Amino acid sequence: MELEATTIDIGTTRPLVLLNTADADELGVHPLDRVRIWWNGETTTGIVKRTDELVDAGTVGVTEPLHYVSGPVEVKHAGTPRSVRYVRKKLDDLELEAHELECIVEDIHENRLSDVELSAYVSAIYTNGLSLEETKHLTEAMSGVGQQLTWDAPVVADKHSIGGVAGNCVTPVMVAIVTEAGLTMPKTSSRAVTSPAGTADVMEVLCDVEFSIEEIQSIVAETNGCLVWGGGVDLSPVDDEIIRAENPLSIDPDGQLMASVLSKKRSAGSTHVVIDVPYGEGAKVESIVAARELSDDFKRVGDHLGMDVTCAITHGADPIGHGIGPALEARDVLEVLEGSGPESLRLKSLRLSELLLEHCGVDASATEILDSGRALERFRRIVDAQGGDPTIQSTDVEPGDESVTIRADRGGIASRVDSRQISDLARRAGAPLDRGAGVVIHQSAGDAVDPGDRLFTIRAETTSKLEEAAELADELEPIRVRSKADALIERR
Amino acid sequence: MELEATTIDIGTTRPLVLLNTADADELGVHPLDRVRIWWNGETTTGIVKRTDELVDAGTVGVTEPLHYVSGPVEVKHAGTPRSVRYVRKKLDDLELEAHELECIVEDIHENRLSDVELSAYVSAIYTNGLSLEETKHLTEAMSGVGQQLTWDAPVVADKHSIGGVAGNCVTPVMVAIVTEAGLTMPKTSSRAVTSPAGTADVMEVLCDVEFSIEEIQSIVAETNGCLVWGGGVDLSPVDDEIIRAENPLSIDPDGQLMASVLSKKRSAGSTHVVIDVPYGEGAKVESIVAARELSDDFKRVGDHLGMDVTCAITHGADPIGHGIGPALEARDVLEVLEGSGPESLRLKSLRLSELLLEHCGVDASATEILDSGRALERFRRIVDAQGGDPTIQSTDVEPGDESVTIRADRGGIASRVDSRQISDLARRAGAPLDRGAGVVIHQSAGDAVDPGDRLFTIRAETTSKLEEAAELADELEPIRVRSKADALIERR
Repeated sequence: MELEATTIDIGTTRPLVLLNTADADELGVHPLDRVRIWWNGETTTGIVKRTDELVDAGTVGVTEPLHYVSGPVEVKHAGTPRSVRYVRKKLDDLELEAHELECIVEDIHENRLSDVELSAYVSAIYTNGLSLEETKHLTEAMSGVGQQLTWDAPVVADKHSIGGVAGNCVTPVMVAIVTEAGLTMPKTSSRAVTSPAGTADVMEVLCDVEFSIEEIQSIVAETNGCLVWGGGVDLSPVDDEIIRAENPLSIDPDGQLMASVLSKKRSAGSTHVVIDVPYGEGAKVESIVAARELSDDFKRVGDHLGMDVTCAITHGADPIGHGIGPALEARDVLEVLEGSGPESLRLKSLRLSELLLEHCGVDASATEILDSGRALERFRRIVDAQGGDPTIQSTDVEPGDESVTIRADRGGIASRVDSRQISDLARRAGAPLDRGAGVVIHQSAGDAVDPGDRLFTIRAETTSKLEEAAELADELEPIRVRSKADALIERR
Repeated sequence: MELEATTIDIGTTRPLVLLNTADADELGVHPLDRVRIWWNGETTTGIVKRTDELVDAGTVGVTEPLHYVSGPVEVKHAGTPRSVRYVRKKLDDLELEAHELECIVEDIHENRLSDVELSAYVSAIYTNGLSLEETKHLTEAMSGVGQQLTWDAPVVADKHSIGGVAGNCVTPVMVAIVTEAGLTMPKTSSRAVTSPAGTADVMEVLCDVEFSIEEIQSIVAETNGCLVWGGGVDLSPVDDEIIRAENPLSIDPDGQLMASVLSKKRSAGSTHVVIDVPYGEGAKVESIVAARELSDDFKRVGDHLGMDVTCAITHGADPIGHGIGPALEARDVLEVLEGSGPESLRLKSLRLSELLLEHCGVDASATEILDSGRALERFRRIVDAQGGDPTIQSTDVEPGDESVTIRADRGGIASRVDSRQISDLARRAGAPLDRGAGVVIHQSAGDAVDPGDRLFTIRAETTSKLEEAAELADELEPIRVRSKADALIERR
């Protein structure tokens, strides 16, 4: 069918083609069908959207990614992308071959799948799982798209946490210790997606985190490491698309998780990686058995890619550190580097650093590097190289001015500190965009609590957000206190 | 957050809320999150779309379904609809309760689910299945939304085919026979979605099919029956949404199929229903065992709803009738009513009519009603009541002028007539929009074929579409001819 192309802005990254209902009927195409477009000797494919209002018959509207199409065009009904057949195959619980997974990754990368198809992929992977072979192939396919970093060092150290634990900002401390021990650790981190603070958000309180690849290389040449935002270097563009479908459903299938993490590590040029696998009530992995299985699989997929992967199974039921939110976590990090700070953050950072050093074959004492102040000095050099204050100390970090402290209305034992609820509170208070917003936790699970003792403090930058968070705190029970005499947890 | 609402047209039926990236970050909302909007003492919910181009900071764009929102509004991050939790539960392969399925149906009906969520629902139902209990609850929930028809007659006859067979236009013949036998059969049918012709498309060649409920009631009062388009009376609005997600994935999960079919029958006021379950290679159901299971479940769900359901397991591997496409099928129907026509269509129509008459407790001979010409007269009365020509005969129906006939290039046995490929050809030739377009099949499976014998004829209304279909015919093998001596079907 001959039509006239016109550009239309509807705020989408998908190559949508808007057809008047009459033209769509004539072509025999339905919503989400594909059409092939020819113009000026060129050709491309788009996803159909039918409309009576936005385009008249005889005209075809092309959205943002297709704005280069113009003038008279020829439009024909096209088949669905091949990868949709493979998504369907996975829905049927059949094993996918390497080339089929590559095809899916390529079509996601090229934005060729509609939301319905992308969601079916994620749902199929979630319900039917990925075999170890499939996970290996998917990881390879995913690391084949996007930027690749390369380093001269024979050993490039890295770490990753599968998440789900509030606080848990061990990465800056680890990078300081490990680079001070002589290893190269060019750490790329994420910003918060659904949490109150990613490592990149925490570091941004102290220095810049967005750099070009060349800038990162010069920072690493100078300090052995960096703590930058990974999104700035586009290491795993496919991952972002997949997360877009996973988030609304709150699912994070194991095979996809491994492929996303390890493909990113491979693209980052890492050779030795420690994966932190927190487990426990409310964490992503709920049992030690599941944590062990996941860890073993992580190692196997790493092997396949030629990366040395080791896993640390850690306590995931409780938050790590006192502060939750960018500035509050930055303060915890600096305190630990200064030799004080929350014990949970200090110990976890030390254990993971020791593991990573040993894994890389380096004979150095993480505790000695931390306690001697050398880690602090190294951290300040990195902050300096990233445009921050080279004399930074914990007391320079300023949390939000507005605050309210919630106290215990009865005595007993703090039986549970709920990472999810603490995170929700911190976000409601404004984190991560309001850097100073968040929650300070005053009790750990197992602590004895007297009536009137402080449980937690909400920090915010504006009164209205503080009020909103305080309102939410009334509905939740982020720190549960139960009577010492009571063995009963809950009666239903 | 206080914002100014502005209406935006992006050709959507979804309640999207366009936020500038800065405002979205400030609110902490991601794409596909929900926001709650308050204005003028009213409140509603929308799905977030982030954009830098379409709206400036301080402004919120509302799409078509929310165009009633205007002026200064208060916008807050809202939770996901409750039904998303239940979709997630089904992804986890857990049994859904009645109120959970009701909640999903209600949210789909109110357009509250994003494409990602709707697709996850369909994918979950497909991979994890629905139990019989779940199917019953889903059917009840689905028949609870949309219009309801009621009839004075104590017995209201109905039929449905689960589809997948080309041609198969038995419904008009059945309605003529069954209403002539004294039963009430107010038949609502669909238009083609992915096939070359639905019963409504075929009937539209002969008369009108879009009527209001009042008009349908008066047609039925006059003739005992009707053959109208069901979409005109909105019997199952939720079904259309679900099909929107099923089609791109080419999936049609059993439980959802039963719920869709039977909820529509219940809304149509039917009391006695025959379900045609074609099975065989290429049909929706591939084995007799699966066909029996599905049939038994159809009856059980019918029982639960207080409907008398019976099933006919039929041959689904080959097309029924000679013509595929609206006019060609209408001609077959009239020929059968006139006492000639394709034997496959005549026999299937008779057998299903007998079954329906018996099922309704009516002692009448379908063959006698057909062979006496009474069915033809009854059919003409219905066509008349629906605004068509009361003297209509098969020779009045005119297929498309353009045609090409494909002939056998070798002798042997027609070993397979592929419904799917025949349908693809008919659509490429212009069906269903070009009423005269389609395919005429000259050989049935098992027929002896000499070299040069006609296999099939493509009919079209324009030369260009005829050429397109002929081109596709070259790539396909809709009628497979194999040597009589060759026991081998294919070597790979």
